[in-house]
Amino acid sequence: METLLIIKIGGNIIDSESALATFLRVFSQLPQKKILVHGGGKVATRIGEKLGIEANYADGRRITDDATIDLVTMVYGGLINKQVVCSLQSLGCNAMGLTGADGNIIPAKKRPVKAIDYGWVGDVAEESINTSVFEALLAAGITPVCAPLTHDENGHMLNTNADTIASALAVALSANYKVRLLYCFEKSGVLENTEDDTSIIRKINRNAFDTLKAAGKLHSGILPKIENALRAVEKGVDRVVIGHADDLSENILEETKGTSIV
Amino acid sequence: METLLIIKIGGNIIDSESALATFLRVFSQLPQKKILVHGGGKVATRIGEKLGIEANYADGRRITDDATIDLVTMVYGGLINKQVVCSLQSLGCNAMGLTGADGNIIPAKKRPVKAIDYGWVGDVAEESINTSVFEALLAAGITPVCAPLTHDENGHMLNTNADTIASALAVALSANYKVRLLYCFEKSGVLENTEDDTSIIRKINRNAFDTLKAAGKLHSGILPKIENALRAVEKGVDRVVIGHADDLSENILEETKGTSIV
Repeated sequence: METLLIIKIGGNIIDSESALATFLRVFSQLPQKKILVHGGGKVATRIGEKLGIEANYADGRRITDDATIDLVTMVYGGLINKQVVCSLQSLGCNAMGLTGADGNIIPAKKRPVKAIDYGWVGDVAEESINTSVFEALLAAGITPVCAPLTHDENGHMLNTNADTIASALAVALSANYKVRLLYCFEKSGVLENTEDDTSIIRKINRNAFDTLKAAGKLHSGILPKIENALRAVEKGVDRVVIGHADDLSENILEETKGTSIV
Repeated sequence: METLLIIKIGGNIIDSESALATFLRVFSQLPQKKILVHGGGKVATRIGEKLGIEANYADGRRITDDATIDLVTMVYGGLINKQVVCSLQSLGCNAMGLTGADGNIIPAKKRPVKAIDYGWVGDVAEESINTSVFEALLAAGITPVCAPLTHDENGHMLNTNADTIASALAVALSANYKVRLLYCFEKSGVLENTEDDTSIIRKINRNAFDTLKAAGKLHSGILPKIENALRAVEKGVDRVVIGHADDLSENILEETKGTSIV
């Protein structure tokens, strides 16, 4: 099977003009078929403040009310997505920006209201991904660039976690491609000591994760990323690596840097 | 050749929730292959005011400075485009929202600075349209929904007139489809007397246009729309109609309402 790279970049890279430019230059030159999934970044909060849209959080997660879904649709689906796309185009990479609503590629379910009402937030499952549209675009030499937005098929956009979109895509597309999923962020991998950027754990499997987690060794922010990564491996994704955006090139692809999830 | 409908809706329809909903319901049910091109609307000005972005005009045309291109990229390419797409999805129409940068479908040239510097404004020619991407999407059952944005292939988005995009697409795609181009707006057609919505001129050709224009009979706002329409007909587009959005259904398609450009 042909190799497909699915690469996720987080908000910290989006927020840094130079980090983003470096990343996009390397990304544009990767010869494999590829999909980019990008997160949000602080620009939505900054624009939201100017528009008088208050950021409300519950349990560290942003509540997506009516004003906020419009805000993130503009900023993630418009500003960030198109800036990434037209930068990639200028680098010779035929990118196409998409939300989950476009071509109905990622229909999702609005998160059910339990203790907390998260508002217009979507939960996505790999079963619902419309792989045929991705396959058609990839076959046409196009690189899909996915914003962290899905839709409920009833006319509402849904704010959706980019890590989850990346792993759902990786699992769904593993049926037809040898998928390598790469989570690129601002650390060099999963760290044993968050203060020490050299304390990279080079390999994590389910057992190691459970042990590290129980011992309270892992930063809480990295837990859902590893969970997504482990799930992807368990569901047939060929390789998953978590690492620094600057290490994207051969290094991260060859797994000589970063943390491999096995 | 198969029929392809290219339908353009203006800002006045975007601005009215009920007019837009009515239009999208009818549009979603048209059985032909189709492309929607949408304009901007007042929402960009409203959001721009809140963000402290001043609207600057020269000769009645908005100057697109750095802040304004970001604004319209957000609002046209994000908010409006995705709201239209997810509404169409809920109506069973497999819409995909695109700017000219996505898939490099509409590369454009930044308008040269002469007496006025229009800023990040794009001029588009039918020769530059990447028809193969449109054809692939249409063949896959997808309805492209185009925002009034293009790109310069050097990493910049460009604000671009939606009427011009619609006619350029119509001309370019006439090579492989029998194209009907429909300009839908808030009037019932080209009016002899702008005060009287029943004074519709049912047919206009180049001669009639020149005569009406010379006599000062036509509203200045309609002149570029008719120019675009005449150019499209002269370059091989099968039919062009200018009419009310509410008359979209059989009426406008059968040309029993609106103004036909011949």
